[in-house]
Amino acid sequence: MPMSKNPSKTPIVGIVMGSNSDWDTMQHAAQMLEQFGITHEAKVLSAHRMPDDMFQYAEQASKRGLQAIIAGAGGAAHLPGMLASKTIVPVYGVPVASKYLRGEDSLYSIVQMPKGIPVATFAIGEAGAANAALHVIANLALHDAALATQLEAFRAQQTDAARSMNLPGY
Amino acid sequence: MPMSKNPSKTPIVGIVMGSNSDWDTMQHAAQMLEQFGITHEAKVLSAHRMPDDMFQYAEQASKRGLQAIIAGAGGAAHLPGMLASKTIVPVYGVPVASKYLRGEDSLYSIVQMPKGIPVATFAIGEAGAANAALHVIANLALHDAALATQLEAFRAQQTDAARSMNLPGY
Amino acid sequence: MPMSKNPSKTPIVGIVMGSNSDWDTMQHAAQMLEQFGITHEAKVLSAHRMPDDMFQYAEQASKRGLQAIIAGAGGAAHLPGMLASKTIVPVYGVPVASKYLRGEDSLYSIVQMPKGIPVATFAIGEAGAANAALHVIANLALHDAALATQLEAFRAQQTDAARSMNLPGY
Amino acid sequence: MPMSKNPSKTPIVGIVMGSNSDWDTMQHAAQMLEQFGITHEAKVLSAHRMPDDMFQYAEQASKRGLQAIIAGAGGAAHLPGMLASKTIVPVYGVPVASKYLRGEDSLYSIVQMPKGIPVATFAIGEAGAANAALHVIANLALHDAALATQLEAFRAQQTDAARSMNLPGY
Amino acid sequence: MPMSKNPSKTPIVGIVMGSNSDWDTMQHAAQMLEQFGITHEAKVLSAHRMPDDMFQYAEQASKRGLQAIIAGAGGAAHLPGMLASKTIVPVYGVPVASKYLRGEDSLYSIVQMPKGIPVATFAIGEAGAANAALHVIANLALHDAALATQLEAFRAQQTDAARSMNLPGY
Amino acid sequence: MPMSKNPSKTPIVGIVMGSNSDWDTMQHAAQMLEQFGITHEAKVLSAHRMPDDMFQYAEQASKRGLQAIIAGAGGAAHLPGMLASKTIVPVYGVPVASKYLRGEDSLYSIVQMPKGIPVATFAIGEAGAANAALHVIANLALHDAALATQLEAFRAQQTDAARSMNLPGY
Amino acid sequence: MPMSKNPSKTPIVGIVMGSNSDWDTMQHAAQMLEQFGITHEAKVLSAHRMPDDMFQYAEQASKRGLQAIIAGAGGAAHLPGMLASKTIVPVYGVPVASKYLRGEDSLYSIVQMPKGIPVATFAIGEAGAANAALHVIANLALHDAALATQLEAFRAQQTDAARSMNLPGY
Amino acid sequence: MPMSKNPSKTPIVGIVMGSNSDWDTMQHAAQMLEQFGITHEAKVLSAHRMPDDMFQYAEQASKRGLQAIIAGAGGAAHLPGMLASKTIVPVYGVPVASKYLRGEDSLYSIVQMPKGIPVATFAIGEAGAANAALHVIANLALHDAALATQLEAFRAQQTDAARSMNLPGY
Repeated sequence: MPMSKNPSKTPIVGIVMGSNSDWDTMQHAAQMLEQFGITHEAKVLSAHRMPDDMFQYAEQASKRGLQAIIAGAGGAAHLPGMLASKTIVPVYGVPVASKYLRGEDSLYSIVQMPKGIPVATFAIGEAGAANAALHVIANLALHDAALATQLEAFRAQQTDAARSMNLPGY
Repeated sequence: MPMSKNPSKTPIVGIVMGSNSDWDTMQHAAQMLEQFGITHEAKVLSAHRMPDDMFQYAEQASKRGLQAIIAGAGGAAHLPGMLASKTIVPVYGVPVASKYLRGEDSLYSIVQMPKGIPVATFAIGEAGAANAALHVIANLALHDAALATQLEAFRAQQTDAARSMNLPGY
Repeated sequence: MPMSKNPSKTPIVGIVMGSNSDWDTMQHAAQMLEQFGITHEAKVLSAHRMPDDMFQYAEQASKRGLQAIIAGAGGAAHLPGMLASKTIVPVYGVPVASKYLRGEDSLYSIVQMPKGIPVATFAIGEAGAANAALHVIANLALHDAALATQLEAFRAQQTDAARSMNLPGY
Repeated sequence: MPMSKNPSKTPIVGIVMGSNSDWDTMQHAAQMLEQFGITHEAKVLSAHRMPDDMFQYAEQASKRGLQAIIAGAGGAAHLPGMLASKTIVPVYGVPVASKYLRGEDSLYSIVQMPKGIPVATFAIGEAGAANAALHVIANLALHDAALATQLEAFRAQQTDAARSMNLPGY
Repeated sequence: MPMSKNPSKTPIVGIVMGSNSDWDTMQHAAQMLEQFGITHEAKVLSAHRMPDDMFQYAEQASKRGLQAIIAGAGGAAHLPGMLASKTIVPVYGVPVASKYLRGEDSLYSIVQMPKGIPVATFAIGEAGAANAALHVIANLALHDAALATQLEAFRAQQTDAARSMNLPGY
Repeated sequence: MPMSKNPSKTPIVGIVMGSNSDWDTMQHAAQMLEQFGITHEAKVLSAHRMPDDMFQYAEQASKRGLQAIIAGAGGAAHLPGMLASKTIVPVYGVPVASKYLRGEDSLYSIVQMPKGIPVATFAIGEAGAANAALHVIANLALHDAALATQLEAFRAQQTDAARSMNLPGY
Repeated sequence: MPMSKNPSKTPIVGIVMGSNSDWDTMQHAAQMLEQFGITHEAKVLSAHRMPDDMFQYAEQASKRGLQAIIAGAGGAAHLPGMLASKTIVPVYGVPVASKYLRGEDSLYSIVQMPKGIPVATFAIGEAGAANAALHVIANLALHDAALATQLEAFRAQQTDAARSMNLPGY
Repeated sequence: MPMSKNPSKTPIVGIVMGSNSDWDTMQHAAQMLEQFGITHEAKVLSAHRMPDDMFQYAEQASKRGLQAIIAGAGGAAHLPGMLASKTIVPVYGVPVASKYLRGEDSLYSIVQMPKGIPVATFAIGEAGAANAALHVIANLALHDAALATQLEAFRAQQTDAARSMNLPGY
């Protein structure tokens, strides 16, 4: 399974979102994949405004070689669940914060899927986007020793960064 | 626009729901349409387990003569919104009460649609199902004087029934 | 059913709201009707400060030729439900975001109507206002082929706009 | 201000509710008034099914001698607020527990009134109904020394009852 | 019952609040009383930092001639309920918006009183403060024809103000 | 600091609650103290119906030798916070589940105390009652080596009990 | 990667939960894995009562060959997140419904993980448990053509089952 | 038990938090301890990024002489509960406000601990941090007469400060 930062390579992860206004949140998924050298693509794919594109994307996901789809949406967030209904490629959902209900609606719309069609859901906002990518990476790392080592190193650096945090006066 | 209680006639309203467990709720929509003699159909149409059927249903709604689709679903309730994304036939959403969050998740998943694709949403549960039907009937009545008269009579009877409610001892 | 952008024509849609502070939200309904050439009127009609005007408005809605009333209100939002109790003209409710509870109170006050008196409810805020108008347009389009075509075109443009959204670097 | 337990006397407090199903809750208001010998009436007065009766009730409240209206309703509970909009007689609202949202919707619909039209709101359910009556009694007692004495005695008995509560084994 | 704008006169309404930071909200109660010429006092009376003062205030309320206590507090808002436990003078509670939960905690802490000790509760924030005062005024007006006339005029002006609201372009 | 299971000994922990209906919950605190041989008392002490008793209880807590007060209440739960306002003896609050809001109101009313008067809050219901007692025991154990040993043993047994849980078929 | 229904085979998926009372929910994960012939283990592993076992479990997960850990817990549900902090094996969290807050607390405690440590979260209750297993299966199927075929067949059967649902009278 | 502001002295209270971004909140605990001359330490100790450090900290707490651990965290806030699972030293939890859910998630994650492992929880944000420290001080004061006097004085000053608050114009 060749991985590369080169965007011309075939993507193995797709990042999709309901609108380009979701990019502020979803770029945190892209950056994480970039950091780990996972070839990926990112595009707007609105469940409600581009339903046929969405279905086509899901239908082709497997044969295009995607091993994960990270989908972010806000409000009545149907994108992750509908993609999941159309493919057996694992779907990871990111609740984007909505204007008035701060993502509580997005979270419920994504996580409360009925038995039979799973969507792996993460935290509201940028933390969720980054973590969706990290979960995908952890799955890829099960079959890629170098990536596993890289993930272990990332974790260790993260621990070191937390350990070195100082509080003023202490 | 001929209307009839005869179920063999072409339906002008479709009632769809994610599972037959939603029928306890959604039959209140059917009964209301029945009461007003509106030809209709009712069927299970799961957004997540029957996505292609759902899209096909929406695509054919207009040419099949449907003037309204009443869609009920619970939890991450994507059925009303996804139908709406695929047809310009008006979609009416009914939040079915979910097991743990009592329909708060269903309500948010249905009502919080983004700008551009509307779903007319009603109360959680049987009241919402009945009212979705009544709203459809009110729209049909704009073009059917007899139905308007019937709706006025229904309202008047409803008022009379409320007026005649007694409280023990008063 | 003649429609025209000319505001002097008889309106077929009424947009009402509890206060002029709701206009920031409700103008999105007006703009949508304007865009589709639907004659409409917009006015402040407070349920609590103008109850008699409200009842009169509802009582005259049918004979004045209104085919839809779009009502927006915030907090203990009684306007849509009370209008609905006084007319069989279909009422569409828009929860305007409240100062402290961000429209959760408005949403519940509008959507949780009892069986018998329906209010078609849409999302909190401007998306809901625009979508209420689009739902009305969809109902009008059932009886107006040109409007149906216009609505299909609107949808197609909306799809194109979403499709052409780019994400920086992708 | 003569008060009497005799129900044939002119009532000074009106208890109204949206449906006879609210009586389980609202009878706690009636019992409290009964206990204090406050002449009152109780009746179903649905905001949505009997809007004209509701307005008439509010319009006549003052000249009929009502000094308080206790109004209970559930879900999109508009009865207390709409009565308040039509009379300067003080209105006391009781949120009746709703089937799915347990009265959270009723509470918001009643308490979140806009500036200018007050509704004094009490707890969800029977405690709220009893307390609405007690608040009315407290207002009456400002002008009725005997009633004030009776209210003081009620409080003292209540304190005694709480004081005499035993816990098994302690 | 003499009323006067002159603050040296004996107050018949007490406005109390947990901190001077609540004054932004509670001044709306004071302004309303001022506008109607109701003699009143306003002071900080913290349930948690001044419990003895609070009890003393409640104990003396009746003999000092107070006919109403309007109490505002935020978060775990115990002031209204504890005052009510110590006096039969009617207590009106105003939930002040809290920093993180926007007054949802304040509202529950005030409105959910157990059977036996009532607190008349109003909306979160300034609308609630103003309405608490208006409810007190409505009770006073039951025994003061001039005040009743003044309240009717206030309502009429309020209606006129709402009626004269214009929407740009309509 | 002598401790004994003998209830005639001077209690060092007080368990108080708003009503005997709270005993189903609060007995879990008593049982835990009993199990650890901590002398304690338990009694009904209603903030709203017995305010003076409550203040007296708090005022005497320190001189009576109480080292902790565990207070449970539901709804607008003012008991823990008001006790805390009147004593420097540490107060531990237990939100008792309310009928309609399941303790969400109780929790907010107890935990959201303003800066200056602390109430240590625990989970809604029986888990919270037991844990309040355990937290008190942990504080006592700081000064009582035998009790610390007993607490360590309790923890070890708890761990063993969890370890020995079997799942059918595994 | 050999898979077998034989439970003596080395498990590749671990199902853990905070208490045996969670088994009613979590058995739905086990049944799904069983149905797909995925070797797995299931055990109680309480974050709070067995913290060292929990850490050891996580530390050994990778070398023991686990490719996924499905962790269910209720209330302050720390098990999934803490396991995730100690291993790079992907962790899937299932919010078990709590007694009073119906799993809203469980959901927030599991899904709202900070950036850096992901937990893939699923719906509250049995649907979430089953879907966590299905998501794991989907990941395994990326590397196992037979399993992919089996998953496609499962989906097809699920679709057929939904399609064959009848509504009484329709 | 010697106490000193000198930070070189052995701390008897540990303040820990998940990230240095929590310091804005948690410094209010430190300042309170400082004000009372309680030797303490403050450090970042992330449950998810430093799990081993966290366990070690809890394991050594007792032998290091800590009499209290004040732990603050936001979102899926596992730090207080996990520390409590590993030590019998009393743990005090502070819910730090999260970006999107304003600390509602933090509160639930901290307070809803299962029976057996207690975390004493305080209000969301800075009030909670200060009050956690005050609760610790109250426990220390049970065994330190001078500290008790100091706490009484603090309370008295606090009362005086509240009493001297003026409202403009009153």
